[in-house]
Amino acid sequence: MALVVQKYGGTSVGDADRIRAVADHVSRTLDDGNEVVVVVSAMGKFTDDLMRLADDVSPMRPPRELDMLLTAGERISMALVCMALAARGVESASFTGSQAGIITDTDHTRAKILEIRPDRIREALDSGLVPVVAGFQGVSTDKDVTTLGRGGSDVTAVALAAALKADVCEIYTDVTGVFTADPRVVPRARRIAKVSFDEMMEISATGGRVLMLRSVELARRHGVPLHVRSSFTWEPGTWIVEEDPTMEEAVVSAITDDTSEAKITVGGVPDRPGVAARLFRELANRGINVDMIVQNTGANGMTDISFTVAKTDLDVSRDTCNQIKGDIGAADVTTDDNIGRVSIVGAGMKTSPGVTALMFETLYKHGINIEMISTSSIRISCVLRADRVADAVRYLHTAFGLDAIEF
Amino acid sequence: MALVVQKYGGTSVGDADRIRAVADHVSRTLDDGNEVVVVVSAMGKFTDDLMRLADDVSPMRPPRELDMLLTAGERISMALVCMALAARGVESASFTGSQAGIITDTDHTRAKILEIRPDRIREALDSGLVPVVAGFQGVSTDKDVTTLGRGGSDVTAVALAAALKADVCEIYTDVTGVFTADPRVVPRARRIAKVSFDEMMEISATGGRVLMLRSVELARRHGVPLHVRSSFTWEPGTWIVEEDPTMEEAVVSAITDDTSEAKITVGGVPDRPGVAARLFRELANRGINVDMIVQNTGANGMTDISFTVAKTDLDVSRDTCNQIKGDIGAADVTTDDNIGRVSIVGAGMKTSPGVTALMFETLYKHGINIEMISTSSIRISCVLRADRVADAVRYLHTAFGLDAIEF
Repeated sequence: MALVVQKYGGTSVGDADRIRAVADHVSRTLDDGNEVVVVVSAMGKFTDDLMRLADDVSPMRPPRELDMLLTAGERISMALVCMALAARGVESASFTGSQAGIITDTDHTRAKILEIRPDRIREALDSGLVPVVAGFQGVSTDKDVTTLGRGGSDVTAVALAAALKADVCEIYTDVTGVFTADPRVVPRARRIAKVSFDEMMEISATGGRVLMLRSVELARRHGVPLHVRSSFTWEPGTWIVEEDPTMEEAVVSAITDDTSEAKITVGGVPDRPGVAARLFRELANRGINVDMIVQNTGANGMTDISFTVAKTDLDVSRDTCNQIKGDIGAADVTTDDNIGRVSIVGAGMKTSPGVTALMFETLYKHGINIEMISTSSIRISCVLRADRVADAVRYLHTAFGLDAIEF
Repeated sequence: MALVVQKYGGTSVGDADRIRAVADHVSRTLDDGNEVVVVVSAMGKFTDDLMRLADDVSPMRPPRELDMLLTAGERISMALVCMALAARGVESASFTGSQAGIITDTDHTRAKILEIRPDRIREALDSGLVPVVAGFQGVSTDKDVTTLGRGGSDVTAVALAAALKADVCEIYTDVTGVFTADPRVVPRARRIAKVSFDEMMEISATGGRVLMLRSVELARRHGVPLHVRSSFTWEPGTWIVEEDPTMEEAVVSAITDDTSEAKITVGGVPDRPGVAARLFRELANRGINVDMIVQNTGANGMTDISFTVAKTDLDVSRDTCNQIKGDIGAADVTTDDNIGRVSIVGAGMKTSPGVTALMFETLYKHGINIEMISTSSIRISCVLRADRVADAVRYLHTAFGLDAIEF
């Protein structure tokens, strides 16, 4: 008997029909001899509707109250899932984040889980009930309702799976798994059957849209196997697991793309110790996440520092750079929000020295200029003009032999 | 400095505009030097929408899950009220039933409050915040979310006012107070400025639609003055207070009507001890509330027992009577759902012996037949044909001098 945590996203519980389909699937999973814990998101666009309502009511949205507001959606969907289960003769009980023992810090709207005390969930399982838990929410050490921020329902599911030592955490969504590239960009992209945590982290970090980096990290830390699959077709999807020494490592597993960032260049900086430290400390103090950083020192002892940030952080980042420009002796600050990033990810890269060369050659052959490069042991990312990103993904997908065979 | 509990019903927080108007009024109340605790219902018809959604999803609605579902509405409205208050510079904090310390029994969908532990509400008040509390909900001794049934938000407000020893509990609604009769039936009905708890209980019990009997009882037990008023005009409404020896008692304060009941007659019953006891015990065992009861023994030692029940309980009541008909030796069971009840209520009745006579004469003069009569020390109720109820209310309203002067 396996213990399965099943997380259903917003589209998976989007209306009465979908909720009944979820109940059917939970019932099938039980019939196959498993124990099931369900984690649900709010229905479809309900949370967006609540945000619009808040916008109508007031320009001020105290974070504590925003959390109180936004957690209403999961209560609705979990109660409805329990009702649909009851109609199938499956006994269940819903649990809010607080009732499920999801204890967080007090950082409203983006709280972090400190501890899980799943006593009530375990009791429910022991008495033969299916616990249905509200995703995305917890209770703070001050006993206030908190939310876990973007991708929060996945975090709830993975954290609960870890606390309950579940055999697998299934993430049900509206796509059939993780693909070798975004199928909207590359029609011949294939679903990946199995991928390691390390590769999945790189995929998530560089533009894979199915899972947030945060939940993959959490799953890796606790060794919780993830299975990303569709609640529309119910077919097996992508397994994300510990790397297995016997696993044949794909040289390149996936090509990802991301056009959500902008580039800032601080130019003509004297090449002396402490300049970069000062710059990135100031940005960090303003809560800005810097992604890629490239620094090249010229012959004249001057250097240009380029880095990328989320487009939404561009204005604050530019202002910050301009404020300290004088202090660090920089000549100018320029920005460019017309860039995109293409990455290739693959655990086999570690032992295949030709990968970097093939990537650069492929881009060169098609006249695509590389503006910045960053690498990890299992990833290479290039910053390009935004309008060449889709082409680059397609050419690389073909070059690395990932295209599905056409019949 | 007075402590005011303000309860806002569904129409009072029906949309963004109404919610802002509520925030303005709370702010004004504070400016007048008061402390305020707010209790809110769900917005407009939101709870009805959730019930429809539940109907779509499943024919089975486990009460625990129904409570989880239905309590989402108050969370939304209370968070929005706090946001609107923030925009006016008023610091506030929302509290669920559980956070407000509203401890109930485990009787889901119609829980009773066992105890209020308003520590967090008091703390909030002491630190200068306006607590905004979800009406209608509590947490059971099993730590599950419960709802308080019909009129539950009023119950929350009155119970909190009692626990906090508030100076007044203001019930904001879409009418301007309690009237001498239903203004839809009697256009010349007047708002009552002040009424005693005893009178208000009779008014609520016999068809007054503004306050449920349950909250008036609770307010009387704890001596919490109620003020029923409009959140659309904000003008002073009706005060419901302890009877005051100096108060001049109106002979008749209000005429009420109710067509929600049906009559059952168990005919030809032998007049011997235990028959009525058996009959009403059987009905009570099926959870049926019997309202008026009339028994007349004829010369032949046989008796007819007539009683009224809610129309929604008619079928079960009829079946119950038919099942025990043989046991109690009754001849027949007949039902009539075409009846209505008209009542006159007034504390001055106790000392004015002519009231009953005037009521009967008025009805007689207009050819209205009385089918059943029941009385308390401050109320007389008559059962009539349903189609004569509105006429009866109007004639009695005039006869007892309650009509507003027309200009």
